[in-house]
Amino acid sequence: MFVDVNQNIWDLGNAEGAGNREWLAHRKIWALNLMGSPGAGKTALLECVVPLLAGTVRVGVIEGDVATSRDAERIARLGVPVVQLEIGGVCHLDGRMVRQGLDALGTVDLDAVIIENVGNLVCPADFDLGENIRLAVLSTVEGEDKIVKYPTMFRRVDALVITKFDLLEHTPFSIDEALREFATWGPTRPVFATAVPTGAGMASLAQWIVEQIRQFRQPPTGADRHV
Amino acid sequence: MFVDVNQNIWDLGNAEGAGNREWLAHRKIWALNLMGSPGAGKTALLECVVPLLAGTVRVGVIEGDVATSRDAERIARLGVPVVQLEIGGVCHLDGRMVRQGLDALGTVDLDAVIIENVGNLVCPADFDLGENIRLAVLSTVEGEDKIVKYPTMFRRVDALVITKFDLLEHTPFSIDEALREFATWGPTRPVFATAVPTGAGMASLAQWIVEQIRQFRQPPTGADRHV
Repeated sequence: MFVDVNQNIWDLGNAEGAGNREWLAHRKIWALNLMGSPGAGKTALLECVVPLLAGTVRVGVIEGDVATSRDAERIARLGVPVVQLEIGGVCHLDGRMVRQGLDALGTVDLDAVIIENVGNLVCPADFDLGENIRLAVLSTVEGEDKIVKYPTMFRRVDALVITKFDLLEHTPFSIDEALREFATWGPTRPVFATAVPTGAGMASLAQWIVEQIRQFRQPPTGADRHV
Repeated sequence: MFVDVNQNIWDLGNAEGAGNREWLAHRKIWALNLMGSPGAGKTALLECVVPLLAGTVRVGVIEGDVATSRDAERIARLGVPVVQLEIGGVCHLDGRMVRQGLDALGTVDLDAVIIENVGNLVCPADFDLGENIRLAVLSTVEGEDKIVKYPTMFRRVDALVITKFDLLEHTPFSIDEALREFATWGPTRPVFATAVPTGAGMASLAQWIVEQIRQFRQPPTGADRHV
């Protein structure tokens, strides 16, 4: 008997994730699953983007970490609702954990929930949390080869955010190679190049997120689609 | 009934790891388990350190990756024996995989095997591969908070290598904080600050590795210990 373990894990994650998606849709709440390596700059990215969103959409954040509530404390300073999931020895969030986070967050007044996953390029890619959009974060200093070395992650996301673009000149990162490799698995997916010190790329990313939320709330009609 | 899953995983990993350790000890081969985030600079570190070791010890390398044989190709250029373990959707190496790597490597002429684990700060920490020394790699650009956010990894290693020290001035990384946090879990463990462009710290690290191998091959006698 052949058992496809990866498929089984995905199905399991899907079942819980699908429940979350239904629960969120019923409340008209859009959700984003933000993934990347430890230290890729996921929390720093949220510190820049969440304030840009806050004028337009009411956003809450769920922080997933193996240990500490440091990231949630950073997000709380932005003045948005945040919940820390401290998950111990587990290497990823799953739908059940996120549901607990949603319950704790109190979603009644929210338009969007951003879920920052555990820093890990492998395991989180296998679990559907109920999100509408999956975003991968890759810092220039990690190297563009990560896109092919961790293929499940970079294949299964809707867009890529390249962080620490201000350090580009100090690393052998090839932006051409990164764009080329990422496009292999979906050539129309957007790529945002960002830098915290200059704020580069943050407005574009925020604008794209707002557009995703708008489309979620008002799906294009058949007529719109053909304009 | 209460099942401590983490303990069970550790015991399972230990059983296979212990077998490898015995197998290696019988052949007088010392082994190192090198762990860190994706893009922390593990392979780049080996590209600097392995040539420094090669004059003194005969070293082989086992590369663990989710996908591609890129790292093994980089190591092969150094002229040392190398085996790539391409482990698909799995997020860590375990003792069984490493045993396959050892068989493929052909260890008859080796003094030391360096095992580069999958880029991941969570799961690899739970698996004993049969190594004598566990080394964690943390790049300055990841941030020193990773030491407390991924405690199992940084508690269970024998030494810390800080990489990309040449980028220190471009990041908010606090070396004082890193040393303080790492010392909490074992104050006598060495920390090496390294930079590939300048070669800083590489000689010290190589020297320390050679000393570990020497101690493994000639364990200190009771008299030596009290000197």
